[in-house]
Amino acid sequence: MALTSRLLTLVDRLSPATVVHAHCDLPCGVYDPAQARIEAESIKGIMEKYVGSSDHDFKTRALFIKEERAELCKHHLWVLWTDYFKPEHLEKHPNLHELFWKATKSAGEAKKTTDVAVADRLLQEIAEIDRIFWETKKA
Amino acid sequence: MALTSRLLTLVDRLSPATVVHAHCDLPCGVYDPAQARIEAESIKGIMEKYVGSSDHDFKTRALFIKEERAELCKHHLWVLWTDYFKPEHLEKHPNLHELFWKATKSAGEAKKTTDVAVADRLLQEIAEIDRIFWETKKA
Amino acid sequence: MALTSRLLTLVDRLSPATVVHAHCDLPCGVYDPAQARIEAESIKGIMEKYVGSSDHDFKTRALFIKEERAELCKHHLWVLWTDYFKPEHLEKHPNLHELFWKATKSAGEAKKTTDVAVADRLLQEIAEIDRIFWETKKA
Amino acid sequence: MALTSRLLTLVDRLSPATVVHAHCDLPCGVYDPAQARIEAESIKGIMEKYVGSSDHDFKTRALFIKEERAELCKHHLWVLWTDYFKPEHLEKHPNLHELFWKATKSAGEAKKTTDVAVADRLLQEIAEIDRIFWETKKA
Amino acid sequence: MALTSRLLTLVDRLSPATVVHAHCDLPCGVYDPAQARIEAESIKGIMEKYVGSSDHDFKTRALFIKEERAELCKHHLWVLWTDYFKPEHLEKHPNLHELFWKATKSAGEAKKTTDVAVADRLLQEIAEIDRIFWETKKA
Amino acid sequence: MALTSRLLTLVDRLSPATVVHAHCDLPCGVYDPAQARIEAESIKGIMEKYVGSSDHDFKTRALFIKEERAELCKHHLWVLWTDYFKPEHLEKHPNLHELFWKATKSAGEAKKTTDVAVADRLLQEIAEIDRIFWETKKA
Repeated sequence: MALTSRLLTLVDRLSPATVVHAHCDLPCGVYDPAQARIEAESIKGIMEKYVGSSDHDFKTRALFIKEERAELCKHHLWVLWTDYFKPEHLEKHPNLHELFWKATKSAGEAKKTTDVAVADRLLQEIAEIDRIFWETKKA
Repeated sequence: MALTSRLLTLVDRLSPATVVHAHCDLPCGVYDPAQARIEAESIKGIMEKYVGSSDHDFKTRALFIKEERAELCKHHLWVLWTDYFKPEHLEKHPNLHELFWKATKSAGEAKKTTDVAVADRLLQEIAEIDRIFWETKKA
Repeated sequence: MALTSRLLTLVDRLSPATVVHAHCDLPCGVYDPAQARIEAESIKGIMEKYVGSSDHDFKTRALFIKEERAELCKHHLWVLWTDYFKPEHLEKHPNLHELFWKATKSAGEAKKTTDVAVADRLLQEIAEIDRIFWETKKA
Repeated sequence: MALTSRLLTLVDRLSPATVVHAHCDLPCGVYDPAQARIEAESIKGIMEKYVGSSDHDFKTRALFIKEERAELCKHHLWVLWTDYFKPEHLEKHPNLHELFWKATKSAGEAKKTTDVAVADRLLQEIAEIDRIFWETKKA
Repeated sequence: MALTSRLLTLVDRLSPATVVHAHCDLPCGVYDPAQARIEAESIKGIMEKYVGSSDHDFKTRALFIKEERAELCKHHLWVLWTDYFKPEHLEKHPNLHELFWKATKSAGEAKKTTDVAVADRLLQEIAEIDRIFWETKKA
Repeated sequence: MALTSRLLTLVDRLSPATVVHAHCDLPCGVYDPAQARIEAESIKGIMEKYVGSSDHDFKTRALFIKEERAELCKHHLWVLWTDYFKPEHLEKHPNLHELFWKATKSAGEAKKTTDVAVADRLLQEIAEIDRIFWETKKA
């Protein structure tokens, strides 16, 4: 990944006047589903460590750190839903509301459980959001 | 990971539609649209004071305090939407997603403007959410 | 509780020329003891669920979520005390300092215990603050 | 940008068994320089919009939103430096301390200026950190 | 102010048997008025720089950074008042409530003005709180 | 530690021409390692109480409050490192980067353990930072 990333950076810097980040909206226009995904990956990592551990204090810490990550995950998803997506996107992707509702509910559920399957479902929902997001960028 | 994630998504879509989540109230079950309304009233108050003032520093402060209140307003609305409302509520109130989307967008717009009309619209949308909320409580 | 709150709101809205939110102070003047009350209700709800549960992780989560709600409750009370109340209010209500001191101490105690009686005491103290608050508003 | 990103994603997904996120450390081990980069891109976007605007209130908002993004950017960089990197990484990359010091100083400088060149320098420093980060992942 | 504060501190520290940081209370018992004082010094520093500058953007940033420092100053004072001080302290220092009310109000006023005199008054009130605090520690 | 710290402070304050709080940088220039030290003392206090207690809920609360204090401690150290210290300081104190790296790593470790020895080490590292800090102030 690092390699391709490097190449991408190189290509990007060689091309003239590349606009690195989009500007869909005021005030900065930089959105990226990666923010939600990283938090969801963190949730999954915490769950796996929780399950694999028998240290009581460690497990206690895992619970409240997971709570924070899930809150951040929800926040990033909410911001995308409200701030990035526009009525024209909704027309093309009528399931957008439902998708975000489910994904943020999954993030909420991830607070209440240490079942890795919930983190996996959340990651899938974010992957679907990511797919739609980049499709709207290309348009 | 991307690869396994993709495969997982595929598998998941082939499996029959289990919707796991969620049962509203854990861990406390206290929700109240008043929280969003108070922030929206605050936004309106700030806008009115902004418009009525000619003190440069005061107006600058008004702008960033309004920004914070609008962020809190959005947050309270998002929490209601994701955490309080359930699929059965959506069935009875199919415009729920649209209503919350518009209200949170209005809160976002309230960051960008000092036009009191935007705060009024936001307050109306919250009043509508409040009406539905208490209807579901009575049910 | 919701019922009385509803009735109050109704009465309030039917009365002529009600200024819903005051503007005692710069920059927005919107204060409402409801913010502290909602957090205190949340604390009570969490305590009840804690007591009624035998799920270790759930109880752990209840403890730190309660901690956050109590912190917010304290914060809303402190803001009311320092920002809303004025020397003329103190003259008419000489017990104001003591009342807020006790209420914020109760909120602090609510972090340390799961005894619902503490949440009830906190709610009563907030109710007393609420009563004085609205009396000063009418004046 | 969306296009190259898509291509990158495609390439990434076709390559075998890439482990996107590591688990170097307790409690979750998910680190990703993308978090700092996204904030830095946001800073650059804000600067460009600031420079291109003549709306006083918009420019005021740009200033304090930029301040927040820069703070988050610093935070993500600090976390990487302290939590992710280990003595063995420092041995191979002896300039690590200096690199992070400069990058966080650039993020601090980005609060104080609207000069896009500072954001560009910050982005380059983060790109260099990103390069080292993924190199340590492959090791 | 710095001078009197210094002298006060010096005198205080030359006295015998000072227990630097106590542990009055659960959960950690570490309180120190220095936290509020540092924020108040920061407020004063910002005001002086604001007054001495003619750079519009710098002055805008000064306003909202001052707002944050003042909020933190209030918070540290509130915590001392509610969490550290006990009824027995109040008996010996009956002006405690009034002192904290005035100090937190000064911190609030410091948000609204760039008049260094307000910061000086705030620093004096904190110095008085500091004096009482260390007196209760020696007892 | 408290004793040596006190002596250090005394000596430092009796020396002529002490500039109480510097103003190295825009926007306020007030830095003080005391902020990090107070949080570290809090961490130590929490650990001691944790070890001395057999109350399960109390110990759970101790864990997440310690987590917060350690996060604040790290933050104050990071700010000092990036914002206060300048290249000329680094020339005179070439171990500065290493010292801050270790201290922030100790603060991170203090999240993961209740071993008071870790808090003691952290306090020593902060004392060393404090010593260098005041030396640069006198220069």
